[in-house]
Amino acid sequence: MNHIEAKGVYVIAPTPFMPDGKIDESSIDRMTDFFLKAGVDGITVLGQLGEAPKMTHEESVGIVKRVLAGAKVPIVVGVSAPGFAAMRALTQDVMALGATGVMIAPPNTLRTDDSIVQYYKQASEAIGADVPFVIQDYPLTFSVQMTPAVIRRIHTDNPSCWFLKHEDWPGLDKISQLKAWEKDGSLRRLPILIGNNALFLDFEVERGADGANTGYCFPDMLVDVVRLSKAGKRDEAHDLFDAHLPLIRYEQQPGPGMAVRKYVMMRRGIIAHDTLRKPGASLSPTARAEVDYLMARVARVDPRARV
Amino acid sequence: MNHIEAKGVYVIAPTPFMPDGKIDESSIDRMTDFFLKAGVDGITVLGQLGEAPKMTHEESVGIVKRVLAGAKVPIVVGVSAPGFAAMRALTQDVMALGATGVMIAPPNTLRTDDSIVQYYKQASEAIGADVPFVIQDYPLTFSVQMTPAVIRRIHTDNPSCWFLKHEDWPGLDKISQLKAWEKDGSLRRLPILIGNNALFLDFEVERGADGANTGYCFPDMLVDVVRLSKAGKRDEAHDLFDAHLPLIRYEQQPGPGMAVRKYVMMRRGIIAHDTLRKPGASLSPTARAEVDYLMARVARVDPRARV
Amino acid sequence: MNHIEAKGVYVIAPTPFMPDGKIDESSIDRMTDFFLKAGVDGITVLGQLGEAPKMTHEESVGIVKRVLAGAKVPIVVGVSAPGFAAMRALTQDVMALGATGVMIAPPNTLRTDDSIVQYYKQASEAIGADVPFVIQDYPLTFSVQMTPAVIRRIHTDNPSCWFLKHEDWPGLDKISQLKAWEKDGSLRRLPILIGNNALFLDFEVERGADGANTGYCFPDMLVDVVRLSKAGKRDEAHDLFDAHLPLIRYEQQPGPGMAVRKYVMMRRGIIAHDTLRKPGASLSPTARAEVDYLMARVARVDPRARV
Amino acid sequence: MNHIEAKGVYVIAPTPFMPDGKIDESSIDRMTDFFLKAGVDGITVLGQLGEAPKMTHEESVGIVKRVLAGAKVPIVVGVSAPGFAAMRALTQDVMALGATGVMIAPPNTLRTDDSIVQYYKQASEAIGADVPFVIQDYPLTFSVQMTPAVIRRIHTDNPSCWFLKHEDWPGLDKISQLKAWEKDGSLRRLPILIGNNALFLDFEVERGADGANTGYCFPDMLVDVVRLSKAGKRDEAHDLFDAHLPLIRYEQQPGPGMAVRKYVMMRRGIIAHDTLRKPGASLSPTARAEVDYLMARVARVDPRARV
Repeated sequence: MNHIEAKGVYVIAPTPFMPDGKIDESSIDRMTDFFLKAGVDGITVLGQLGEAPKMTHEESVGIVKRVLAGAKVPIVVGVSAPGFAAMRALTQDVMALGATGVMIAPPNTLRTDDSIVQYYKQASEAIGADVPFVIQDYPLTFSVQMTPAVIRRIHTDNPSCWFLKHEDWPGLDKISQLKAWEKDGSLRRLPILIGNNALFLDFEVERGADGANTGYCFPDMLVDVVRLSKAGKRDEAHDLFDAHLPLIRYEQQPGPGMAVRKYVMMRRGIIAHDTLRKPGASLSPTARAEVDYLMARVARVDPRARV
Repeated sequence: MNHIEAKGVYVIAPTPFMPDGKIDESSIDRMTDFFLKAGVDGITVLGQLGEAPKMTHEESVGIVKRVLAGAKVPIVVGVSAPGFAAMRALTQDVMALGATGVMIAPPNTLRTDDSIVQYYKQASEAIGADVPFVIQDYPLTFSVQMTPAVIRRIHTDNPSCWFLKHEDWPGLDKISQLKAWEKDGSLRRLPILIGNNALFLDFEVERGADGANTGYCFPDMLVDVVRLSKAGKRDEAHDLFDAHLPLIRYEQQPGPGMAVRKYVMMRRGIIAHDTLRKPGASLSPTARAEVDYLMARVARVDPRARV
Repeated sequence: MNHIEAKGVYVIAPTPFMPDGKIDESSIDRMTDFFLKAGVDGITVLGQLGEAPKMTHEESVGIVKRVLAGAKVPIVVGVSAPGFAAMRALTQDVMALGATGVMIAPPNTLRTDDSIVQYYKQASEAIGADVPFVIQDYPLTFSVQMTPAVIRRIHTDNPSCWFLKHEDWPGLDKISQLKAWEKDGSLRRLPILIGNNALFLDFEVERGADGANTGYCFPDMLVDVVRLSKAGKRDEAHDLFDAHLPLIRYEQQPGPGMAVRKYVMMRRGIIAHDTLRKPGASLSPTARAEVDYLMARVARVDPRARV
Repeated sequence: MNHIEAKGVYVIAPTPFMPDGKIDESSIDRMTDFFLKAGVDGITVLGQLGEAPKMTHEESVGIVKRVLAGAKVPIVVGVSAPGFAAMRALTQDVMALGATGVMIAPPNTLRTDDSIVQYYKQASEAIGADVPFVIQDYPLTFSVQMTPAVIRRIHTDNPSCWFLKHEDWPGLDKISQLKAWEKDGSLRRLPILIGNNALFLDFEVERGADGANTGYCFPDMLVDVVRLSKAGKRDEAHDLFDAHLPLIRYEQQPGPGMAVRKYVMMRRGIIAHDTLRKPGASLSPTARAEVDYLMARVARVDPRARV
């Protein structure tokens, strides 16, 4: 199959809900439009922070359809599931609708190199060897550790392997290793987009990452930082990044992080409500005030935070 | 809601597949018929060892429908899922078909007493407070440890809590504790059916367990052991149980255990094929020969193993 | 026993080594002196990031003796061990030398509320009910999750419980809860010093934490931030903190973080070498250059980073 | 270094305590004598079920010295520790006393093939490349999964690798794989002694294991089963093994298992008390009665259980 590129910012889209938990379709439209205007290069829907496991199959398909209607960029759909049957079913439906590829996270029971490699082989067979897939390497959440060599084996075994969503922690040397292999020809082109709420975006791009695949509440900032860094404007990139770092860190908290993200996106007018489905928690008034304070501080440097 | 009892053997049904991985409906019929003739008091479908995560929603509903068509006993359906939406969707469909209740395992990220109690509260709200549910307490597989006090809290909080599928290991003192509380009135009636492939069935029943909720390849033996034990025929119960123990132990291995179970059920003529869906492994010829040897040894005491 | 207070900064001391791995005693002296001049309120030696498990008993005692010789502040000694005998032996030796108390982390096998409470009860009995001990609540590393209620039980059960080294993540609401209980009298005075490399120090102090108990390479900055925050100079506290945050984040990486800390402390002249004992990794040249760059950026705001 | 063989039964010795928790030296003598008369080929002291982490360094050395005084067989000493310094210190002391080698378990944080291989390399360097060491492969307890290929890498990398204490579960195919490699020359001679409380000893020996390295309360039975099996008396081996299996299973329970073992050894007159050090639990009266019942049943076949 033909190589597909990936670079810049593939934003992880949250799933907007109405206060009663129903899917908020008009917010999906507004959010998609916002992403495009922000200059993203792609959109990933139904990732972990898209609250994917909280949706039924029908809802998942509906969300993808809605985003696809407004998007002019590649769409990646998270299809991770406890079994291959559900993974295949969702993949088939969203690829038929026009998605570009899917993202697959490893189940948290995998413990050996071979078992990880085998899992991706079987997953690729299950969804179809022609469906581009993204490796999600997020040990903090999935408890599965992939060495660079394991990632290379997966990418080599599967021509349909598209790019790496890199969110190992620490992960800088992993990027350096993979990019060195890409350079010396021992690894075919493997785009690396980083996640982990962009906590290390500044240095990750300098290490060779091709961009970001994460959902920080200011994806427009991510676009700028990647652009500045790729343009060699190192200090400018760090200045902008550092202004956001206190909020990035705050949003990266497991659990409340997703509520922070939705709260800021609501304040920015991107989505209408900051509702999470259960078992998602809402922010305490104190936490909201802390986020407001952080936004006010960001606004001193980045006017987009003035809301 | 009215109290529902549970005792004797609620067999965990495997899901029979054709060699190509399709669901083998005629084997479902034959197996259901076999279970009823074996004297089981209930049937649990789509448990972990029913390969539940490998089925699509539609397949799951189809299997339940098929079992219900042949069953004259209560049917429990495993509805564990990574999110409440899928859990609710499957619960609604199978309850509408006539299932008696559902079984819910905790997600393997729960670490505190409160988080476990809250999970069952939210799960019960998600599926409907009128749907009887079974607590699956299986730390070896789910990495979630529930103390007797946590189980009591869940049972007290949720009138729709039906029974405990107890498969902690070690678990004998847990049964003793819960039954002591039931006796002194500090815990309302909580039937306990044991799992863990019946590895401790002999003593678990003596400790007060009400029966078994597991899928050993000789459920007819489980029925006999529970009956003998409840009738006070201790030595006879142990004699029969011990004759099977070498095979029980062999079948209890994580991973190949399910292949062992299906292989024996195929040899017994209960299902047509011993196919597992991926990522399930098949038995090596050596392993099959070992199972054959074990069956031959069981057959010296229990003629049902002569096949 | 009499209540002992804890507030301000209890710095976590690294263990300085010679390039050949021997303990660098003159660096211990210089470092202790530096800590005192920086205005710390206490020193914790042999914590996780003091590479405690890499020392023999004799080495551990020697390090404590050396720090005690130069210190005029309370000394806490990490005594976590896989068994109570080694914990008791080290505790007795360091208390006899003049340590003020010890720090105990839970073994990573604990899974239920009761088992955590019981562990601290048994640990306290093992070391002696008169030895002040610190609870280390660090789920990210230890995989043990303690709810506020569990911490309250431990503190209530054990009069010798001294303070909480709080490094849960997320942890802001945990501080708020414990401080609310302290205020309403349902929890006796429990000082909370935060860890987690100070990644949330800014808000943690605002939530009521009494200070920090961590080892960031600029403990003098931690002292200032706590002081500013307690003095109500919120913006100043955040300004200083935010200037360091890019480096704090970089140092907080599991694995290389300890090498970053020692490298900066070496550059600052606090210790002579940045050697780690195996299996500790050293920094790559690229990583060192990144740290240099971060320090140069910190130096624009905080002259102490000009080295 | 010269190859050292290992076969037959290397019994895992418990550590006998007085009722007050002191080490019971005369029971050590009696137990050592019993082991030799039972025909064991080696003794492993200070394993997990020797309650190793509950001893101080001095106590550990004292126990080894005592066993060595009475032993005429190879002695293996468990030296697993959270750091290499303690591991090296204990190794040096026990090797100087005359131990034949040491046993090393991996720390439960290892997650990738390379990290496991590297750990054993570093451990071997730490203890000295001339010290024979045993790989303990016990995923159920240590959460570390070693594939056959990883074990081969460790054995190939380290000439001082002595034998494999195999206690994976399931593990039969792992033995077959390693023995096939040994046969085809792709793995140098690697003796395999099985653990896991001998739960699969019958088939493990048939798969090629060289013996057992476990501590079941009837090590004399293990000696007989290995001998019968190696002599081709398959049915006799299984008959004897199966008679003990109900008790083996009962003793294999995590937690109470160690108390069961000591209780039976006390009843057999091998040790004077069944005391465990904290946090070890004692058996409830009900559990003791269950063990008594199981022993009575074993005694119908094996007169050694008549006590």
